[in-house]
Amino acid sequence: MGLNSIFEPSSVAVIGASRESGKLGYEVLKNILDAGFKGKVYPVNPKADEILGLKCYPSIKDVPSEVELAVVIVPARFTPSVIQDCGFKGVKAAVVISGGYSETGDAGAQLERQLVEAAKSAGIRIVGPNCQGVNSTSAGLCASWPLVKTKGPISVISQSGTVLAAIGCWAEADGIGVSKLVALGNKCDVDETELMEYLAQDPETKVIAIYMEATRNGRKFVEIAKRTAVSKPIVVLKSGRTAKGAEAAKSHTRSLAGLDAVFSSAFRRAGVIRVYGVEELYDTCKALASLPKPAGPNVAIITSSGGSGILATDACEELGLNIAELPSGVAEALRDGLPPECIVRNPLDLTGSATSQLYDMVLSTILPSKSVDAVIMIVGDPMPGISEVISKNLRAGKPIVPVMLGGGKAEDEERAKLAGMRLPSYSCPVRGAKVVAALAQAGSHKT
Amino acid sequence: MGLNSIFEPSSVAVIGASRESGKLGYEVLKNILDAGFKGKVYPVNPKADEILGLKCYPSIKDVPSEVELAVVIVPARFTPSVIQDCGFKGVKAAVVISGGYSETGDAGAQLERQLVEAAKSAGIRIVGPNCQGVNSTSAGLCASWPLVKTKGPISVISQSGTVLAAIGCWAEADGIGVSKLVALGNKCDVDETELMEYLAQDPETKVIAIYMEATRNGRKFVEIAKRTAVSKPIVVLKSGRTAKGAEAAKSHTRSLAGLDAVFSSAFRRAGVIRVYGVEELYDTCKALASLPKPAGPNVAIITSSGGSGILATDACEELGLNIAELPSGVAEALRDGLPPECIVRNPLDLTGSATSQLYDMVLSTILPSKSVDAVIMIVGDPMPGISEVISKNLRAGKPIVPVMLGGGKAEDEERAKLAGMRLPSYSCPVRGAKVVAALAQAGSHKT
Repeated sequence: MGLNSIFEPSSVAVIGASRESGKLGYEVLKNILDAGFKGKVYPVNPKADEILGLKCYPSIKDVPSEVELAVVIVPARFTPSVIQDCGFKGVKAAVVISGGYSETGDAGAQLERQLVEAAKSAGIRIVGPNCQGVNSTSAGLCASWPLVKTKGPISVISQSGTVLAAIGCWAEADGIGVSKLVALGNKCDVDETELMEYLAQDPETKVIAIYMEATRNGRKFVEIAKRTAVSKPIVVLKSGRTAKGAEAAKSHTRSLAGLDAVFSSAFRRAGVIRVYGVEELYDTCKALASLPKPAGPNVAIITSSGGSGILATDACEELGLNIAELPSGVAEALRDGLPPECIVRNPLDLTGSATSQLYDMVLSTILPSKSVDAVIMIVGDPMPGISEVISKNLRAGKPIVPVMLGGGKAEDEERAKLAGMRLPSYSCPVRGAKVVAALAQAGSHKT
Repeated sequence: MGLNSIFEPSSVAVIGASRESGKLGYEVLKNILDAGFKGKVYPVNPKADEILGLKCYPSIKDVPSEVELAVVIVPARFTPSVIQDCGFKGVKAAVVISGGYSETGDAGAQLERQLVEAAKSAGIRIVGPNCQGVNSTSAGLCASWPLVKTKGPISVISQSGTVLAAIGCWAEADGIGVSKLVALGNKCDVDETELMEYLAQDPETKVIAIYMEATRNGRKFVEIAKRTAVSKPIVVLKSGRTAKGAEAAKSHTRSLAGLDAVFSSAFRRAGVIRVYGVEELYDTCKALASLPKPAGPNVAIITSSGGSGILATDACEELGLNIAELPSGVAEALRDGLPPECIVRNPLDLTGSATSQLYDMVLSTILPSKSVDAVIMIVGDPMPGISEVISKNLRAGKPIVPVMLGGGKAEDEERAKLAGMRLPSYSCPVRGAKVVAALAQAGSHKT
């Protein structure tokens, strides 16, 4: 069986549904309803007749119709028998949110083995246990928290529920949206490698974000990642890089983090883009989801802020990007079109008197040049109309990474317009440079 | 004369005021009025009778009363004679916003020399030229853009108008606020060293942020910085670190960036905190303005998100902070108070079932320990009431750096409450760790 029953089920039972606001059994059920799940929803709780307006069943076995997916939020000691019951009922997959398994010690580990055995003999696939659930926006299935509904190009596989939720929340707030969010938890069955393989085929997923502390089968991970990354970028945030971080990872999900250098070289081989923070993970995914990949490392920096242009230059240099000299033809054309106070060079400082029209002229002059693979476009002043200029010039097929700061209300408006076009924007020249480096890495793997 | 006439003038003339919305001469005048400047405001423009409801004068010499500060927004070629007129009028200081001076080449450099001579013989101090102006919130004097009004503890000295504006905008949006913002421009007279000396004495300034590309008198800068940093933290963002960045700096403000290693060691000697991005500059200032400085490098990480705790651990380790073992007494007390699924260690993972009450218990248990100098408090779930817990436990006199992510609407509410108490919060464990490292550096300089 594939993983379709997890992401596109026709019906869901919430086992351990609760009437009490604030409890997970209530919040998850509510999020499934609020996200607009189209299939049937069955709360299961022997002590309730009705929850959130839905008839409640004492056991999954009492549900009168078929159930494809079970979301399990009952104490760990009950889950093996709950999964057995799911088996009788013909349930195909279960998302086990409850904790209290291998992450808590030997007794929990034994419970987890029982859970796995019950699932195997019933032919049920398990996500979790000890996880923050699953969200599939196309199915309107938010079996997780907080509520995230906006459909979009980013899918996340995460050993941390919080990292998952953070990316979901930011993508929701930005209007960028997500496709599938999966919390791995203890990954007693479904793991990052199988999910990556599934998401590689998912037409709604344009970029795959992974937070991981370890992987059980490194060779297989690299193999699948390598195949996937050719067509779909994979961005990995791997923690446990330091000795104390690795110890903490062991305590968190019993992960043996392994030597970090081994991971780094494996990621490189696989064409996976490695990042080092949660915001950087999101920044990178946002860009990869919507911008074309550059054909090479040559970056032009266009700015209305001289200082920000220098900061971006420093960052690009340190990231191995090339702040290329502009070819003489391009430089001449720019000299003709620019006011005399602009010195034609790269970074190109249009000065504080820059306008959207000037940016447009510059973009359309430099983008056709073979010496420019990508543009960092810094807007350091209020610049009405700049979002349209960016979107129009993206037709040249080269990435334009907008960095906007210091622009007050006009900036907020242009950012919102970019988000409405599902285009990213960044607040700091250094973040913009990092994003271009990631795009360049993705581009180099592609060709 | 000191610099009081720049930041606390009794009257301001805007020379080159304009009737046309969008023009600097209009926007700056409007911002001065909108920021609620209490003194007299005199627009000067020979072609207008009235601008924004104020009587307009053909020349500064025609203004019937005394004028303490002139804000100059006329083409460069007119400024030497304008400054002469200011001299006749008894003006004490001028903020020259107009560009077209040394940054444009030899002819401009000559104009700048004339400007300096005129100012010297008239006894007028000059900020700029080629700058984004000055904002002094306590005087309600926003002679800059965008409009920033919120009073607060951060002052910024910047060779980039955009960096200045970005910090102002962010501090305004967060409700943290700023005290003085000064754009240096070509710093033909007033420079970062003199301003630092002034801000060291300014009771409203709690932390000084500096963006610089170069300094003319490195020895003096270090001397003043060293003296200032003992009582007031100084955070510097210095660009032109790489060869191409240094070239770009030369083009931007004719700055000779010098060897970066020399700056790094000078900053270290002076007790200046160095940062590498605009957001990092703001992150750091926000923390230094409101949180106590730690007595040492020992950090406790408390988290509801295991993964985020590991990411913070990695970052702390790499930044030279110490993720100290908890003393046995503290560990025992925690074991008594925590649910069994929490493993007592550092980072301390309270798991997804953490509550504000649990955080409160943990904070009050560990903060008295001599083995804990600072806390990174990661809130990776909706956590109503957590802002009060943070503010209450700050009474222990040790910094608590809140990192909040993945918490949806409840998180937004708690962040807003923290901002209302002028307390910072961060969105990424890595940013939180960087802030703690900066606090520790400030703390070590203090003692």
